Amino acid sequence: MSKKITPRDQNYSEWYLDIVKEAELAEHSAVKGCMVIKPYGYAIWEKMRDDLDRRFKETGHQNAYFPLFIPKSLFEAEEKNAEGFAKECAVVTHYRLKNDPNNKGKLIADPDSKLEEELIVRPTSEAVIWNTYKGWIQSYRDLPLLINQWANVVRWEMRTRLFLRTAEFLWQEGHTAHATKEEAIAETEQMLEVYADFAESILAIPVIKGIKTENERFAGAEETYCIEAMMQDGKALQAGTSHFLGQNFAKAFDVKFSNKENKLDYVWGTSWGVSTRLMGALVMSHSDDSGLVIPPRLAPIQVVIVPIYKGADSVSTLDEACLTLKKQLEAKGIIVKFDNRDTQTPGFKFAEWEMKGVPVRLALGLRDLENKTIEVARRDTKEKQSVASEGIAEYVNNLLAEIQENLYQKALERRTKMTYEVNSYDELKAVLEKGGFALAHWDGTGETEEKIKTETKATIRCIPLGNKQEEGKCIYSGKPSKERVVFAIAY
Amino acid sequence: MSKKITPRDQNYSEWYLDIVKEAELAEHSAVKGCMVIKPYGYAIWEKMRDDLDRRFKETGHQNAYFPLFIPKSLFEAEEKNAEGFAKECAVVTHYRLKNDPNNKGKLIADPDSKLEEELIVRPTSEAVIWNTYKGWIQSYRDLPLLINQWANVVRWEMRTRLFLRTAEFLWQEGHTAHATKEEAIAETEQMLEVYADFAESILAIPVIKGIKTENERFAGAEETYCIEAMMQDGKALQAGTSHFLGQNFAKAFDVKFSNKENKLDYVWGTSWGVSTRLMGALVMSHSDDSGLVIPPRLAPIQVVIVPIYKGADSVSTLDEACLTLKKQLEAKGIIVKFDNRDTQTPGFKFAEWEMKGVPVRLALGLRDLENKTIEVARRDTKEKQSVASEGIAEYVNNLLAEIQENLYQKALERRTKMTYEVNSYDELKAVLEKGGFALAHWDGTGETEEKIKTETKATIRCIPLGNKQEEGKCIYSGKPSKERVVFAIAY
Repeated sequence: MSKKITPRDQNYSEWYLDIVKEAELAEHSAVKGCMVIKPYGYAIWEKMRDDLDRRFKETGHQNAYFPLFIPKSLFEAEEKNAEGFAKECAVVTHYRLKNDPNNKGKLIADPDSKLEEELIVRPTSEAVIWNTYKGWIQSYRDLPLLINQWANVVRWEMRTRLFLRTAEFLWQEGHTAHATKEEAIAETEQMLEVYADFAESILAIPVIKGIKTENERFAGAEETYCIEAMMQDGKALQAGTSHFLGQNFAKAFDVKFSNKENKLDYVWGTSWGVSTRLMGALVMSHSDDSGLVIPPRLAPIQVVIVPIYKGADSVSTLDEACLTLKKQLEAKGIIVKFDNRDTQTPGFKFAEWEMKGVPVRLALGLRDLENKTIEVARRDTKEKQSVASEGIAEYVNNLLAEIQENLYQKALERRTKMTYEVNSYDELKAVLEKGGFALAHWDGTGETEEKIKTETKATIRCIPLGNKQEEGKCIYSGKPSKERVVFAIAY
Repeated sequence: MSKKITPRDQNYSEWYLDIVKEAELAEHSAVKGCMVIKPYGYAIWEKMRDDLDRRFKETGHQNAYFPLFIPKSLFEAEEKNAEGFAKECAVVTHYRLKNDPNNKGKLIADPDSKLEEELIVRPTSEAVIWNTYKGWIQSYRDLPLLINQWANVVRWEMRTRLFLRTAEFLWQEGHTAHATKEEAIAETEQMLEVYADFAESILAIPVIKGIKTENERFAGAEETYCIEAMMQDGKALQAGTSHFLGQNFAKAFDVKFSNKENKLDYVWGTSWGVSTRLMGALVMSHSDDSGLVIPPRLAPIQVVIVPIYKGADSVSTLDEACLTLKKQLEAKGIIVKFDNRDTQTPGFKFAEWEMKGVPVRLALGLRDLENKTIEVARRDTKEKQSVASEGIAEYVNNLLAEIQENLYQKALERRTKMTYEVNSYDELKAVLEKGGFALAHWDGTGETEEKIKTETKATIRCIPLGNKQEEGKCIYSGKPSKERVVFAIAY
């Protein structure tokens, strides 16, 4: 089965798409740029969603649901936001089809159903949500308003890649409103922490927390915080963003509140989101040439049990032993799949679960039963060993924790190894050539940033939080700089 | 607070909307026909979703996600389905906005971004899903394919009502594929059972299981099964449908499989769904003139604890007692809210939680502490009594079960009382006049059904499963009939 995967060093991009396909995560649909998320891929997304949702609720947020469509006039209200997204908006212009008079059996948009005002399919929901908040917020008592939404959004893309860049994607978008600037900034930072902890402890992906330059900022934000991850090829992937919106949307939608002194003021806002892009980050962080590798804490199946049947007589004996084993593991809270299909060989099953990245595989044959052992294979290192049945649940539980930690450490080591301080433009180019993050001095201007981007395709991924301050010279302009920023080519 | 609710007997429709508004379930959005589901409403929907999702998974289904958009040509492929939904489709025609050259600051759909083929915003996903299944199904080994999707859909509505009829709504849609007709029918019936049990045991809404007449069938189905509920005004609400699709979609999308004899055959299909309409059913089944009433098994908050502070000194004593109480209840798995706001009076809180339908309210003052009692108020009957603190968790747990049962029994009694056997057209009209279900003989023709609908607005809600067979005459045409069907005016 693993033959179907193009090796990473041969064609990284093909390798990625092969894994998405062969692990049955997603596929292209009949609609240009839109994907079908297949059951196994969706099960992983559900695990991400549930874990994040719990974290949002623990930090006081509630879920709600806002409309898919945004009337054009609302969309226009916050000018920068509108400008930022205008070029990728799907536009609904009609609300009815009718039979095509010239083409039997075919339908056309009924000209009589043309909308007076076009509707934009949400690329993000600030406009429709802030327009709603106007009705919800009158006084400081209504604040903070801490809301999240799980939804689909559409941003028209010409060049798409499954999970990484699709016209429609699934995401969550938090939208909060606060009485003070300080509180809104604290919220922005809190949610960045939530994302970072989720990425590191669940996805096992180390991330750099930082702020975006003005050029890379979310359209309509005062400040964009982000977490940036490094993929195996040294490219960057923005894994989550948290925006301090200042009073921009409050002003655009006239959302005022009376404070404790009974004075009217505009509300302060934040928004923050992560999306099914994280599925792409997952694939490109841990997988190998044999397929997907999923960190145990994220895996929809943490352990698969494969019986090694030997003749019809062995079936009931082995099934019984496997079911006992399954129960022991489940008692520890482990998610187990017992693969007792009689239509497939053990070899086929091994290859399939390896492809699908199940962290631990247990195999059990008649000889194992005699010897009171179980064959344990871990997906991350591909090590196999025979382990005593007694205490197996404890053993597997520890092993899962070890795999989780190992994946994180491996990714961290890779990032450390592939992160370079560069002190000239040539050094920067050399790093980009071989792949990696380049820490470089920059003069702080959007002009320089833009030129570097045009010439090298690299962007400033972020200015790390708590960045070391040091004197230096911009690698491009030679102008003075006080800190290094992270340059990389990004997905 | 309850003053804001229009009494049912004064204006039932206003009563409904008042509750949706005052219990903070949903509101109209800036987009015609689309609603905002507010946090409390969404929390109830999440409970519905999670319970159903568990049932779907227990019956072997997996979740997946399919595109929001359907290319027009795909949409046209299953002719009846296309015809059935064509008149309510939102149509995307452009994928970009640009600055309006004649109107500074305004945007227009960029004429250069006109799509070659229009995209339909899914009103239901059979077309895009069966087109995908073509690639997933080759052999009997790929069957059954048991997939569900949680998604938003759009059906353009001119006359909308929150939850009951909105242009965009949330739902789940199951789409399964099978090797045999029998298996597909069994699946259709199984999912109807899942819906019925969910409605009765969680929502506390008794339902009639039945099949739709041809006129009322889902566009593209061979048979539509449904569950029908009676609202307090005697009108019917279709609470869920399960469709046996025959081979219609398989033929339209050329989905064939090789069976065990290696012969090619078309696949058999089903689809089934429930939506945020259930929120409307919930409101109209149990609520009263003081607000929403939620069955305990569905309530996002099952018990609210309100401390009766008396002076600043009492706060820490009462808070401590309330938190102990909260822990006792939570140990039984009860979902508890401790309302310790110091900005609101107990009276305000009582009214608010009554409006929001929390099943049980516990109040605790200093005198209660002395007497070792707690004031227990149940939302369904509004009875209040003083109960000993000792064993309170057990008491409340039993009370929640009792309320759940009581709500179901009340709804069932109402339905029984408001269901009439009618033996003439005049009797039918009299029942429709006062509200209720009419069990009447019908000649089995769509023509008669249509005439009755035009003249009375009543439709045949269903032909109940396991219906008693009896000789009779159609109340409209006088032609012979073998069973009674359920007539009602429906939401």
